[in-house]
Amino acid sequence: MSKLWTNKTASDSKLEQKIHAFLAAKDIELDKELICFDIEASQAHANALASIGVLKGDENSKIQQSLNGLLQKIKDKQFELTDKFEDCHSAIEFYLINELGDLGKKIHTGRSRNDQVLVATRLYSKQKIIQLIELNKNIASTLLAKAQEYQFTAMPGYTHLQQAVVSSWGMWFAAFAESFIDNIDYAKKILHWIDANPLGTAAGYGVNLPLNRDLTTQQLGFSRLQINPIYAQNSRGKFELSVLSCFKQSMLDARKFAWDLSLFSMTELDFIKQSDVFTTGSSIMPNKRNPDVVELIRASYAKIQAAYQEVENLLSLPTGYHRDLQFSKRPLIEGISEALSCLDLLPELINDLTVNQEQAEQQITPDMYKTDLSIEYALKGVPFREAYLEIKNNTMDLSGYTPDKSIQNRTSPGACANLMLDELEKRLLDN
Amino acid sequence: MSKLWTNKTASDSKLEQKIHAFLAAKDIELDKELICFDIEASQAHANALASIGVLKGDENSKIQQSLNGLLQKIKDKQFELTDKFEDCHSAIEFYLINELGDLGKKIHTGRSRNDQVLVATRLYSKQKIIQLIELNKNIASTLLAKAQEYQFTAMPGYTHLQQAVVSSWGMWFAAFAESFIDNIDYAKKILHWIDANPLGTAAGYGVNLPLNRDLTTQQLGFSRLQINPIYAQNSRGKFELSVLSCFKQSMLDARKFAWDLSLFSMTELDFIKQSDVFTTGSSIMPNKRNPDVVELIRASYAKIQAAYQEVENLLSLPTGYHRDLQFSKRPLIEGISEALSCLDLLPELINDLTVNQEQAEQQITPDMYKTDLSIEYALKGVPFREAYLEIKNNTMDLSGYTPDKSIQNRTSPGACANLMLDELEKRLLDN
Amino acid sequence: MSKLWTNKTASDSKLEQKIHAFLAAKDIELDKELICFDIEASQAHANALASIGVLKGDENSKIQQSLNGLLQKIKDKQFELTDKFEDCHSAIEFYLINELGDLGKKIHTGRSRNDQVLVATRLYSKQKIIQLIELNKNIASTLLAKAQEYQFTAMPGYTHLQQAVVSSWGMWFAAFAESFIDNIDYAKKILHWIDANPLGTAAGYGVNLPLNRDLTTQQLGFSRLQINPIYAQNSRGKFELSVLSCFKQSMLDARKFAWDLSLFSMTELDFIKQSDVFTTGSSIMPNKRNPDVVELIRASYAKIQAAYQEVENLLSLPTGYHRDLQFSKRPLIEGISEALSCLDLLPELINDLTVNQEQAEQQITPDMYKTDLSIEYALKGVPFREAYLEIKNNTMDLSGYTPDKSIQNRTSPGACANLMLDELEKRLLDN
Amino acid sequence: MSKLWTNKTASDSKLEQKIHAFLAAKDIELDKELICFDIEASQAHANALASIGVLKGDENSKIQQSLNGLLQKIKDKQFELTDKFEDCHSAIEFYLINELGDLGKKIHTGRSRNDQVLVATRLYSKQKIIQLIELNKNIASTLLAKAQEYQFTAMPGYTHLQQAVVSSWGMWFAAFAESFIDNIDYAKKILHWIDANPLGTAAGYGVNLPLNRDLTTQQLGFSRLQINPIYAQNSRGKFELSVLSCFKQSMLDARKFAWDLSLFSMTELDFIKQSDVFTTGSSIMPNKRNPDVVELIRASYAKIQAAYQEVENLLSLPTGYHRDLQFSKRPLIEGISEALSCLDLLPELINDLTVNQEQAEQQITPDMYKTDLSIEYALKGVPFREAYLEIKNNTMDLSGYTPDKSIQNRTSPGACANLMLDELEKRLLDN
Repeated sequence: MSKLWTNKTASDSKLEQKIHAFLAAKDIELDKELICFDIEASQAHANALASIGVLKGDENSKIQQSLNGLLQKIKDKQFELTDKFEDCHSAIEFYLINELGDLGKKIHTGRSRNDQVLVATRLYSKQKIIQLIELNKNIASTLLAKAQEYQFTAMPGYTHLQQAVVSSWGMWFAAFAESFIDNIDYAKKILHWIDANPLGTAAGYGVNLPLNRDLTTQQLGFSRLQINPIYAQNSRGKFELSVLSCFKQSMLDARKFAWDLSLFSMTELDFIKQSDVFTTGSSIMPNKRNPDVVELIRASYAKIQAAYQEVENLLSLPTGYHRDLQFSKRPLIEGISEALSCLDLLPELINDLTVNQEQAEQQITPDMYKTDLSIEYALKGVPFREAYLEIKNNTMDLSGYTPDKSIQNRTSPGACANLMLDELEKRLLDN
Repeated sequence: MSKLWTNKTASDSKLEQKIHAFLAAKDIELDKELICFDIEASQAHANALASIGVLKGDENSKIQQSLNGLLQKIKDKQFELTDKFEDCHSAIEFYLINELGDLGKKIHTGRSRNDQVLVATRLYSKQKIIQLIELNKNIASTLLAKAQEYQFTAMPGYTHLQQAVVSSWGMWFAAFAESFIDNIDYAKKILHWIDANPLGTAAGYGVNLPLNRDLTTQQLGFSRLQINPIYAQNSRGKFELSVLSCFKQSMLDARKFAWDLSLFSMTELDFIKQSDVFTTGSSIMPNKRNPDVVELIRASYAKIQAAYQEVENLLSLPTGYHRDLQFSKRPLIEGISEALSCLDLLPELINDLTVNQEQAEQQITPDMYKTDLSIEYALKGVPFREAYLEIKNNTMDLSGYTPDKSIQNRTSPGACANLMLDELEKRLLDN
Repeated sequence: MSKLWTNKTASDSKLEQKIHAFLAAKDIELDKELICFDIEASQAHANALASIGVLKGDENSKIQQSLNGLLQKIKDKQFELTDKFEDCHSAIEFYLINELGDLGKKIHTGRSRNDQVLVATRLYSKQKIIQLIELNKNIASTLLAKAQEYQFTAMPGYTHLQQAVVSSWGMWFAAFAESFIDNIDYAKKILHWIDANPLGTAAGYGVNLPLNRDLTTQQLGFSRLQINPIYAQNSRGKFELSVLSCFKQSMLDARKFAWDLSLFSMTELDFIKQSDVFTTGSSIMPNKRNPDVVELIRASYAKIQAAYQEVENLLSLPTGYHRDLQFSKRPLIEGISEALSCLDLLPELINDLTVNQEQAEQQITPDMYKTDLSIEYALKGVPFREAYLEIKNNTMDLSGYTPDKSIQNRTSPGACANLMLDELEKRLLDN
Repeated sequence: MSKLWTNKTASDSKLEQKIHAFLAAKDIELDKELICFDIEASQAHANALASIGVLKGDENSKIQQSLNGLLQKIKDKQFELTDKFEDCHSAIEFYLINELGDLGKKIHTGRSRNDQVLVATRLYSKQKIIQLIELNKNIASTLLAKAQEYQFTAMPGYTHLQQAVVSSWGMWFAAFAESFIDNIDYAKKILHWIDANPLGTAAGYGVNLPLNRDLTTQQLGFSRLQINPIYAQNSRGKFELSVLSCFKQSMLDARKFAWDLSLFSMTELDFIKQSDVFTTGSSIMPNKRNPDVVELIRASYAKIQAAYQEVENLLSLPTGYHRDLQFSKRPLIEGISEALSCLDLLPELINDLTVNQEQAEQQITPDMYKTDLSIEYALKGVPFREAYLEIKNNTMDLSGYTPDKSIQNRTSPGACANLMLDELEKRLLDN
């Protein structure tokens, strides 16, 4: 491996190899996700160096050109990050030195790997949150369409997994739609919160140069400066947690949605159907079609939860950079990647769902109308608590009730007869 | 214990007592934090019932008066929530029935304990986040004052716990100030995110009444309606996690700050002094003064982290209310309470700190100027990477350097010579 | 508050009160669980001091008598640990000084609060694991009785929550019995692992006295010495995690058992019945009987999981005692206490269960015999994989099959026809 | 991809590819760790089928031969598990069918992928725990050698990171030695606990065949049968947690050891030296040598902690197999692999350490003798508590004390003058 800042003679003792493997961990693999952001930041850094006269004449334009070339090669798969390099940060510097000689050796003036990794991680995180927002929109909009489709289709509503009152598939789909709409808002808030530029803080103590940090802030599209260099370092881990929390919000919903589908698919309930493509067979039981996709979506929350916990578990440290923090990279990148793959399945999975209307309606038992009845009594003047007890303790004639009627009378805002789908649609568009 | 919705004959079998204790858990103790919010929500609910004619004539004003009386009694400690009651929700209904007879039995029309606990918990959470914001402001402003006081006082700057470059106490204090300022912004964002009204969603399926949810939204000061009743239930746990995440942000900073103080107080460093009130002695060693307060602040993060995890660990459940969710109450309330107690110590603790300037400066070794020197070489035209290697590999005369000079030259925005305290002050005021 | 090792003048500044409350946390409450173990250890310590001549003549017998008196007063509720004391450790020393004057001031010779808390916590943990073992035995034996009762009663067996093959209630009960039997073995192993005496390690560095640690080891019933004083300190947290892991094992089973009961109680499945004492009603829905006990048992795992995580989250620390470690006390004691309360409900809950045999059998669909059939084909010489595909792809006549027949033919060891209840019984007795 | 138990026509719709990638996750990569264990279990299964006449004549010997061939090919890298296969389990069946035609189709008689993965994971776990035990022994023995080397070399002993009493490097090394010796005991206990054979439980309900499970138990080297098929499934996750807990124990020690080294390497303490191979440089600061290896060892605990949490987070599920459980494979295998890589560095790292004796001794301040003095007073008859206060409150002449003398007088068992290294050595050999 080539190192830029060492004068050690290369050696291949077994111990050194072991140590190198341990230090590198999965950095090269992970840095493939970061290298383009680091190039972008390197370009901004060079521009800023030029603006204060550290790069002179056409030095900056040569650097820009060379970095553009590198970006293109990465896109064209002509440059690959391999373990010849320690990480993406030194790979870029190597590339420039290789291309531009002494000029390349100037790129690192006034910066450190520490602020390089911070700025690249922030840019990466911003892009990923934006992808999450798009996905949330897509999911919410698919759910709203289903809510429309099954607006007045009855289903049993449960509390404590016990039949409670009549509900509708429209209300069920709309519930998840609203949740994903709120996830968009959440993600946007976090996107804004992390939108601060750490570039120019060097190793956590700034440098003896009047770096033009306003220029890099503007060119990299950050909305503000992360001012203090020590804070820039100390925020490592803290901002990753906030990023991962966005993904957790959506994955919590995905898990609950999957739980419902898993339950609703039980032979004894049989409320929904999925295409074969979403199910698999058993190696020993010829009769099985298993909702494996749904189960792995449910299980996927454990991954993002663990990724978050892994970052959090690293952070009991004093001020300043510690190599420990390198290990926040894997859970951040893998956690995000796995969450996005999982969420990416949802629009098609939702679209594919068919409600077994007849079966869902059939399972509704007359007892489920008793709450409606209590409130009717209350409207007629029986104090609610008395109405409740009377109905609880006596046999009632509930033959006049049907699922449809129960749904049509559920007029409280948000409930079956008043799902406020327009308002949800509006919130989705506004977000 | 008195129950409103049961016709069981009271019994005191040992098993029933055991089960009751298990079901009640710490609810009564915890509900003391919630009861006033539940009364406030009950008042809004009564107003809304009146607005749609469910309460008639002076019924509503009697209920309002009675609830005002209850609030007053709680303030005056004339009413205490005890385990005579199942929880605060039934206590309120009991109170009204006791005071108003049949009229009291009307209060529960169109609501459920499920939306009662949701709305009370949201109102409680909003208040606690506002307290957190105030505390963060107080802490940030104390830190900024200290940053001003020690603006140009030198200290060793560390990375990897190894001496790196000269730093300043001003930069160190300002780092934490900026972090707490960002915490305010974070808390405000979450405050807005949870600011949606679940009242009127009943047991998660709405009711057959055109509840005036806009009115309760407005009267309770929520900025919007949480529309879908199923979503209102499903957001249980999810919104608590977002609330706790605000507190975690501040506690992460508190932990790192405490870590620094613990380290800086080591005999061998001896950088800071605290008043005796913040330290304790040993039972066996007469020579000890231990920074116990700082250590317990550091340890307190584990509590809020565990509280968050406890809520999260509960949530792998299908749609709808499950009694499991009751157990989110304890970690939410205790987690918040412990975080606030801990953060509440910070302003006085920070104010009390005295920097041992002489000792901090003395520990600075000449090697710490080498980075400054590299950049000076770079400014004179030696490509940075070459300057770096030359300085690394040769003995340098660093006699002309002093901590003060190093600080004064650190001109990059945010660094020692350019802390941008005004900008931080401005952000604090804007938040 | 009275402190033994301070010469501070008592003060009641608001800050000092705040700090005191923060430092004390819940120590007094928690130490009520530890004080008797600390007295026992103090007695062993005094004996050991006498054995090396540090206590002379009748000094030791006076101390023993006084400590016996204290133990008796605690049992008789004549002595209560209050916040007059810093913790149980200083309370004991205070008591002795009060009773015995100068002699009382000798008890702390050669020990520290650090080894006091370690030894008390180990003794406490040993007792609690023994309680857990008894409870596990009780649960396992109740489950075995139910397995016997329902040995050949059919139920649908599920994988992926989908009907798979015919199963029996006997196999289901026996599964949990075996799990709890294994929990006993696990708990015994951990009991042995923590059975090492830390008393005599003082503040983590031993003392300049040839303490008779073999005597205290023997008198306190430890099976071996924890030799190294630094290790004694460093094992704090580490051994608590191993203790909590025993409780987690049993609680994992309790959660899965509760999950099954929650599911089996669904209106659509209706497989099991519980007495009213285990269920509760709804505040709004007159028709509901909810399995709240089962749900809170399920939820209780989150508590022990969080308790474990809270201890673990504290432990990223260098060698030696830090006040942070005090915060391991609460999750240890509360975690154990809540787990025991929860597990304590299981024997009665299991006993109370009634299987709805008819309904369980009715839900079995003919498809569930197809795996049996495949194996029958295989026995007739059709290679299994071919048999599987043939049965999967063709309509089969399954009219000859019944749940009973399927159960009777399931002869593989451990399966429905061969539950090996005798072997389980034997393992239970051996454990 | 080839599937054995599906009659779907292969398709390469984008959705199917996406779903396949999601379902497969990292199975192929992970199964490379399991395939040899699955072959071993398949051989035992075939033997057991032969013993009950399901395989006849030379059928079994052909299968054994073919599986031996597969094992050899894997060792010789002539067979590679690729994503042509769904997982290692179907790959083995495919191989046999390919080699043996109809005979190959018989291997799956009476087993399921469910018990295949269970038995392979148990065999894998047993092997990994044995590796862990060997590593723990190696580490403990290296530490004991260092304890011998520095038996009477003085160092400051800390509590609360404050200087407390004189300690020795011998005691410090011996502390970690004892901890790793206890880890061996812990690992052996867990090894025994998981040593139960799940093979023959099929999909969790057994089969209609009198499988010879005693034979497989014996041939696979398990010490007992896991009897109940439902329990075999339900123990998934539960036993993985116990396996990971062994690795956590050792990693907790590794973290604390790394914390100490990180601290002891601070410029201001400068107690220990490491070879260059264990340190790295900075990209911007020419003066830096950073203890990166030590920091990443410290950070590695977060990985095993997260792996454990990831498994735990999956387990809130009712009885029976669910696809969710597949996701326990990655954290188990990666967690173990990363822990072993980390622990594998310790022997060489410990061996390499050099104590800076002069510097460590120099930092010892006279105050550190005051505890010794208190006990000397106590021995002369001053009640300890009085001695303590007198020494605390007055200036003492401590000129007669030296680090060496303090160490030599620390005679309590386990302390500096009585490290009991022979006893530790004995325990290491006994384990």
